[in-house]
Amino acid sequence: MGLADMGFLDNIRRVTPYVPGEQPKGKVIKLNTNECPYPPSPKVRAALQGMDIDLLRKYPDPDAFELTHAIAEYYGLKDSQVFVGVGSDDVLSQCFLAFFAGKRPILFPDITYSFYDVWAQVYDIPYFQIPLKDDFSLNAEAFLRENGGIVIANPNAPTGVAESLETLEEIIKGNTDSVVIVDEAYIDFGGETALPLLQKYENLIITRTMSKSRALAGLRVGYAFGNETLIKCLKDVKFSINSYTMNLPAIIMGKAAIEDDVYFREIRDRVVATRERSKEHLRDMGFSFQDSKANFIFAKRGAGQAEEVFRALRDKDIYVRYFNKPVLRDYLRISIGTDEEMDIFFRELKECL
Amino acid sequence: MGLADMGFLDNIRRVTPYVPGEQPKGKVIKLNTNECPYPPSPKVRAALQGMDIDLLRKYPDPDAFELTHAIAEYYGLKDSQVFVGVGSDDVLSQCFLAFFAGKRPILFPDITYSFYDVWAQVYDIPYFQIPLKDDFSLNAEAFLRENGGIVIANPNAPTGVAESLETLEEIIKGNTDSVVIVDEAYIDFGGETALPLLQKYENLIITRTMSKSRALAGLRVGYAFGNETLIKCLKDVKFSINSYTMNLPAIIMGKAAIEDDVYFREIRDRVVATRERSKEHLRDMGFSFQDSKANFIFAKRGAGQAEEVFRALRDKDIYVRYFNKPVLRDYLRISIGTDEEMDIFFRELKECL
Repeated sequence: MGLADMGFLDNIRRVTPYVPGEQPKGKVIKLNTNECPYPPSPKVRAALQGMDIDLLRKYPDPDAFELTHAIAEYYGLKDSQVFVGVGSDDVLSQCFLAFFAGKRPILFPDITYSFYDVWAQVYDIPYFQIPLKDDFSLNAEAFLRENGGIVIANPNAPTGVAESLETLEEIIKGNTDSVVIVDEAYIDFGGETALPLLQKYENLIITRTMSKSRALAGLRVGYAFGNETLIKCLKDVKFSINSYTMNLPAIIMGKAAIEDDVYFREIRDRVVATRERSKEHLRDMGFSFQDSKANFIFAKRGAGQAEEVFRALRDKDIYVRYFNKPVLRDYLRISIGTDEEMDIFFRELKECL
Repeated sequence: MGLADMGFLDNIRRVTPYVPGEQPKGKVIKLNTNECPYPPSPKVRAALQGMDIDLLRKYPDPDAFELTHAIAEYYGLKDSQVFVGVGSDDVLSQCFLAFFAGKRPILFPDITYSFYDVWAQVYDIPYFQIPLKDDFSLNAEAFLRENGGIVIANPNAPTGVAESLETLEEIIKGNTDSVVIVDEAYIDFGGETALPLLQKYENLIITRTMSKSRALAGLRVGYAFGNETLIKCLKDVKFSINSYTMNLPAIIMGKAAIEDDVYFREIRDRVVATRERSKEHLRDMGFSFQDSKANFIFAKRGAGQAEEVFRALRDKDIYVRYFNKPVLRDYLRISIGTDEEMDIFFRELKECL
């Protein structure tokens, strides 16, 4: 039967999916999806080994209370101010569905996490993108226009640029009729969190992930902070989609990860130190970039070179991220690996140039 | 700040969430959420113990290939005919979003899984419910009217009633301009699967779960079968929401579960045997019910007794499911436990009556 005969296709949602970075197998140097180069906390391992597998026959706690509570405690919040999901993509997509149901366009920068426009599309949310300044910083004033919601990644992706708390406050304060989401996926690596603003503004939602700074991309745990009213709305939407999003391993291991603050600080500090060292190398090799506060560097070296370098590196089993889009195509986004991985990367990069 | 000041609430999606069955803690007899009373396969345990925890630092395979492939192989399908998600609720909610984007109302029975109208509401899908016949069977002819999609649970929940393949085929064949979803969450316990119709009809999607017959409710693994075109549409929607829905433990343990067919048959057969024995007990105690092909029995004993019995049992730490809705309020939905659990249940039930 040919496609033309399939009348039911008329009812199908038209989408252009987000394309995640490659997940190559085997022994490669993987600097393309901003994963942590270090393993998860030993306490995560212990938690998994202590898990009662027989419990898997039962549904998990729909509120994932143990995980939610551990997160709330760690950040000094009430349990009712925390929402958890299957990675921050799940949390963010549910935020879009829950908070952006108005008719006015939502706003986000034109260069930012490229999932925002995909979620807007899949949920039929009108949107308008605000150009970044030439130095990739936010044009805060441009966000003071009528809108149905705002989402800002801080530090931004793929630029790595962090905004000051003052800039964010200006946007949150100037838009009290909209929910403002601050996506803090990369905040642990050096940006200033918007958490202190949570007590001051009712319209603020902050999202986080365990995929980067807590070395748990494979576990799929993300979370959001907000006032109780917004978190309640978010939970209502979640309970309208899937009662049980967090499986037992995610609840147990996520809790163990958030509780091991010593290990968290140790691996985060190592990533930050390697990032700073990597900036020097890149500068020496003629790359230019804004000062990254994330676990990656978005770097450029002249025009028209990035794609070629990306391919040459891939041939050597070194994966970085290349975005074939007008403003981005002269850049490579390089995730920070271990010192050893970065040494190999720089050696091979030198050969490519 | 009061709610009245929160202008941003105007943009918030209005929903009435699904309310899942209670998940009481401690030593109780839990016959309220259709879980399997037996633990998962020993091979699931072995798979978890063999998992390389260090791999959790990396994103999981976005296609969950190992799991998808194991499922495809087990059912004799191509990999491209299988879609996996975080429980069949996740799979079904994505099916609603993907396939029911038209303007005509979708159809489902008036007594059925009470998540269908919730998904329709959250995704703004118009719907129309077709009354079941008095014996809770499907009125197939009533589904031959203009619609934007159809969803049918077989066996149905909470009734346990299974429809013949002929009845389902009549509906699928009569609606080639709509996607027809057959929700087979309970099919392993005795119904006739629509799988043989998959080669014949391009508009058919079948959904399944590991939560019931494979004793893995806590792992959150559901899946769908369909032709490659429909599965591709479903994947496009998934990749527009969350690139990585299946965490590493779910991929690894789900694969192990599907591969252990011997254990699966053993625990399924035990549940079915206990169900048939339970039917006799219930009949002896004056209950009436349709012949259940699921892992629960939806039973009634006179009018106005159900809620009271439900509460009395709960006071004895025995949980069954009670739905406080017009047509359902004289019934109890009793999940099938172990023989020992059912013996205690029947003893205590006798006391309540």
